[in-house]
Amino acid sequence: MYKVTFAFEDGNVVETFANTGDNLLEIAREANVAIDAPCSGNASCGKCRVQLKSGELDSKKTLHISEEEYQEGWRLACVSTVCADVTVLVPDIASAYKSRMKVADLSSKGEIAIFENVKSDIELAGIELTNSLDVVDVKMSPPSLDDTMPDNERLMRALRKYLNISRVRIPYSVLRKLPNVLRDNDFAVKCVVRTTPDDMFVYDIFGKDEDVLIGGLAIDIGTTTVSALIINMENGEILAKASAGNGQIRYGADVINRIIEQQKPGGTNRLQRAVIDDTINPMIQEMCKKAGISRNSIYRMCVAANSTMNHLFAGINADPLRMEPYIPAFFKTNSLFASDVGIAINPDAHIIVAPNIGSYVGGDITAGTLVSMIWNKPEFSLFIDLGTNGELVFGNSDFMMSCACSAGPAFEGGDISCGMRATDGAIEACTIDKETMEPTYKIVGEPGTKPIGLCGSGIIDIISELYMCGIIDPKGKFIREGKRIRHDQYGMGSYVIAFEEEAGSVKDVEITEVDIDNFIRAKGAIFSAIRTMLGSLDFDVSMIDHVYVAGGIGSGINMENAVNIGMFPDVPLDKFHYIGNSSLSGAYVMLLSTKAEKKTYELASNMTYMELSTVPTYMDEFVGSCFIPHTDTGLFPNVKQR
Amino acid sequence: MYKVTFAFEDGNVVETFANTGDNLLEIAREANVAIDAPCSGNASCGKCRVQLKSGELDSKKTLHISEEEYQEGWRLACVSTVCADVTVLVPDIASAYKSRMKVADLSSKGEIAIFENVKSDIELAGIELTNSLDVVDVKMSPPSLDDTMPDNERLMRALRKYLNISRVRIPYSVLRKLPNVLRDNDFAVKCVVRTTPDDMFVYDIFGKDEDVLIGGLAIDIGTTTVSALIINMENGEILAKASAGNGQIRYGADVINRIIEQQKPGGTNRLQRAVIDDTINPMIQEMCKKAGISRNSIYRMCVAANSTMNHLFAGINADPLRMEPYIPAFFKTNSLFASDVGIAINPDAHIIVAPNIGSYVGGDITAGTLVSMIWNKPEFSLFIDLGTNGELVFGNSDFMMSCACSAGPAFEGGDISCGMRATDGAIEACTIDKETMEPTYKIVGEPGTKPIGLCGSGIIDIISELYMCGIIDPKGKFIREGKRIRHDQYGMGSYVIAFEEEAGSVKDVEITEVDIDNFIRAKGAIFSAIRTMLGSLDFDVSMIDHVYVAGGIGSGINMENAVNIGMFPDVPLDKFHYIGNSSLSGAYVMLLSTKAEKKTYELASNMTYMELSTVPTYMDEFVGSCFIPHTDTGLFPNVKQR
Repeated sequence: MYKVTFAFEDGNVVETFANTGDNLLEIAREANVAIDAPCSGNASCGKCRVQLKSGELDSKKTLHISEEEYQEGWRLACVSTVCADVTVLVPDIASAYKSRMKVADLSSKGEIAIFENVKSDIELAGIELTNSLDVVDVKMSPPSLDDTMPDNERLMRALRKYLNISRVRIPYSVLRKLPNVLRDNDFAVKCVVRTTPDDMFVYDIFGKDEDVLIGGLAIDIGTTTVSALIINMENGEILAKASAGNGQIRYGADVINRIIEQQKPGGTNRLQRAVIDDTINPMIQEMCKKAGISRNSIYRMCVAANSTMNHLFAGINADPLRMEPYIPAFFKTNSLFASDVGIAINPDAHIIVAPNIGSYVGGDITAGTLVSMIWNKPEFSLFIDLGTNGELVFGNSDFMMSCACSAGPAFEGGDISCGMRATDGAIEACTIDKETMEPTYKIVGEPGTKPIGLCGSGIIDIISELYMCGIIDPKGKFIREGKRIRHDQYGMGSYVIAFEEEAGSVKDVEITEVDIDNFIRAKGAIFSAIRTMLGSLDFDVSMIDHVYVAGGIGSGINMENAVNIGMFPDVPLDKFHYIGNSSLSGAYVMLLSTKAEKKTYELASNMTYMELSTVPTYMDEFVGSCFIPHTDTGLFPNVKQR
Repeated sequence: MYKVTFAFEDGNVVETFANTGDNLLEIAREANVAIDAPCSGNASCGKCRVQLKSGELDSKKTLHISEEEYQEGWRLACVSTVCADVTVLVPDIASAYKSRMKVADLSSKGEIAIFENVKSDIELAGIELTNSLDVVDVKMSPPSLDDTMPDNERLMRALRKYLNISRVRIPYSVLRKLPNVLRDNDFAVKCVVRTTPDDMFVYDIFGKDEDVLIGGLAIDIGTTTVSALIINMENGEILAKASAGNGQIRYGADVINRIIEQQKPGGTNRLQRAVIDDTINPMIQEMCKKAGISRNSIYRMCVAANSTMNHLFAGINADPLRMEPYIPAFFKTNSLFASDVGIAINPDAHIIVAPNIGSYVGGDITAGTLVSMIWNKPEFSLFIDLGTNGELVFGNSDFMMSCACSAGPAFEGGDISCGMRATDGAIEACTIDKETMEPTYKIVGEPGTKPIGLCGSGIIDIISELYMCGIIDPKGKFIREGKRIRHDQYGMGSYVIAFEEEAGSVKDVEITEVDIDNFIRAKGAIFSAIRTMLGSLDFDVSMIDHVYVAGGIGSGINMENAVNIGMFPDVPLDKFHYIGNSSLSGAYVMLLSTKAEKKTYELASNMTYMELSTVPTYMDEFVGSCFIPHTDTGLFPNVKQR
């Protein structure tokens, strides 16, 4: 047995024990030390770097670690095994996905504005913002020797009279509390109830003088990032907001790797626990703390997630999603309750799941489509959700078509050596001086925050600037030299945005040719999907009236730069609208409004799905799109001009 | 810390550790060593006897231990504290209630006959023996690229078509299994479903070639004894049968002591766990083992229990039951599911609860009334359930009245120094020779079983014989002398049925004047309740056509002897019928038949309840009944003659 010590940049350490030959990445997983391994630990992504500080490791050399770095002690955890006591430094960037749960400061207006807008859009479309949950005051006459009705019938009688409803259901959780709550409050109580035309369900009971809040939880489970809101179900007020990396990331960056992991023994449970126990429940805890509410006062939840995430969240075998004929276990389900899956809110809380429409277009898109409002306009709109999968919906109030493409995690900072989510320390915007090639950048977080890495919007800017400054060519190869441009032993170039001493990290923040190549393939997937879908409808980009861009790429996304690199079609910039995390805001309105929930089911069942892989021209489009901006520069007249 | 060793007659030991001053009974409870303490451990019942084998105990002397016994090392655990390492012997009789779980041998016809009779009685009364559970075969066309319906909708569509029902509900537990079960069986499956006019609920899903059993669990939770059946819900076949002492007994023998214990911190959970985890779940495990079935294949459960047991089982505060105006939390509830209370069967299994009609007449009586069939006859019948509470129902097809009296646990062997339940080793019948005063007795169990103690029917016989032989007087005092008659230092007499050397135990099996006095008060409570209820209706015992006697008193009950001691009215012996554990057989038919379940609710709501404590003459009747047979011997003309 050897002692393995993981040290962090903030001075914290985690100690554990391991045997000779144990894999360092596995040891970290066991010890709950977050080290990202988007490739699932097969040495292909190079993200799981750690630095040997003392002791020894048995490590293979890989292309991801230069000779110089190897001398400095850098190793990939996934190819390192234990052979002695050892201490390794885990750089912040190694856990950029997971560890950084962020509970938002709601006093900053920007955090809430997007949800206020969504609410008013939905209301303007004639969809009522009401749901079936309510607090009702109930006063009963206390029992006596002449009125010996038992507690549950007494409450049912009172509720029936009060609300003129024939069937009242009191679940075990409430029955249990009844004798005490009734007697401690002289039979004057408040009930949290759900009322439908058929019946009334009593979720909870309190004394008449207690403050009762009906909380709701909206969650967007992305492959890379999980975002959540706690809201007041009576008025839609946002009480807390948080985001965190999806704890499943250590089992693979994309849905396919996750499904493969799920098929291993115990995998179903492992992945379900990773997203619920390691990600969602801690978020709920922190949000409740911040909002000063009890988790038991959250009586309903809405999840928007892609089809694979839905299945993994529910602990359901997702393998059929990736195998022909690609059949999910469910499009919709109303069978999920908090206690079923161990979500730490009121155990009777019902979980609304935004409907999937197929294996590759899931609830994140149907929820997002709802709040994109493209279904409510006669003009043609394109809705683009930039997640680990890229999904597109095109249409108007008459029809909608959707498709999905595998962009990989690059938009959220995955597959990029210094990539990270758009959270504190991320460079979210950047310009580069044409002459000096010096960068100027903007960092997410408090003023004074040091850069740790690059989020999606920052990467778009850097690639666009590098191209516009003539530092890289259309293939993404470095063609100028300078202080910030380096080449490794194999000749691969990179550009350093912040040297170690400028950065807040132990590592330079840079972008490499490999990163640029990964990103180009991601943007190429999106652009070629747009072309293919429009082409199949005989539409031209000029007919697009609005482009709604959603996703965790960062609110700082510069649409001009995104067009410059050939990610989005070259339409007038005023047609672009960044609508933030539309999956989360969709979950928010579905949670708040029963009518909006129904509308989403309706949109889902009316949406046509186009399977890109069956379109012969898609691969050609993709190959052409893997250039900056495109092999056919005629498609980008404005970029050419710029 | 001292080592405390509990040794048992069979040679087993349990070792634990304790501090100076720790109470031995508490230590035993913590260590899960069954030592009965019907009085809850306040030194009043004298049942928690243990024998000091080595080491020391700090013990108070009590009236329950004679000087000679004290010299032999006998101590009451409840007044003993630890002051050194110690080993005590726990005699079998000390755990006669709890430890003796008995799984019945169903090859013996007698075990099943009573349920067969009940089934045919119920069927003859026109009540169908069917329920809403079913196994259905479902064959679906497998999905293809042209038929991409998700798994849950595919199954719902098939079930809807098959059964012509509009609403199908698939709970999480089934949704989870769907992708695997469907694909492993080429989309040909068997479903366990519940079908009602409104909807269909899918409990479980299996491959088409699997053997599928729909199991049901019927349970009678008595204050002293718990009895259970596992049945085949499709035909009512009894697959297993078991009984055990109620694990709550260590917290008090009667409902009042249990409720007091429930009010202590953690008491609700402690009592709920004692009956579920320590009693019912082990019974389920053993029964399933014996029947060779999986506990998950038990899809419905019916509980018949008195109102307090219902509440303690459900973990609901029972205090209001014993305080004016005596209000239960529920008469009926359909909110209980196996997973709510941790019953180890299918977690989605619904728990049917036989309805209470008040604090002191519970589901055991309503279920018992159902199978007594008194509601189906024009003649007047009296139904007597001899539990720890005695309950009576009198009436016919036109009306029914019920009342309850507190008989204490004597009928099930409680409050009797050598009392035990009617299980292996119990003397269940006895005659005494008038001349020699030698006993002849019958023991429950295999031939050759040695006597351990006395069950209710045995005690009735012994008291009747002692009285008929002139050994005791009408007050229960010993008035003859002989080899088997002893007197302690205070002059209290006792009769030894089996000396230590004849018995299978470390202790003589005897009956003392204190025991006789306890039993006389129990039988007096019953007889005076009968007189009071009939009197209030202006009925005379001569108008009773049938007396149905139920309860755990033992099938060996000798009605003549019971009349002799003045427990039952002096009516012709052919009017008496022992119907066994009617609470369990009631639970059995309620489980098997939805119509019978409904009938029970109907009977419960039509039954009038008479509160004996509000009848002024009841106390006088009780005092008169505390003699053998009664102060008014004119009430027992036949006994006088005998």
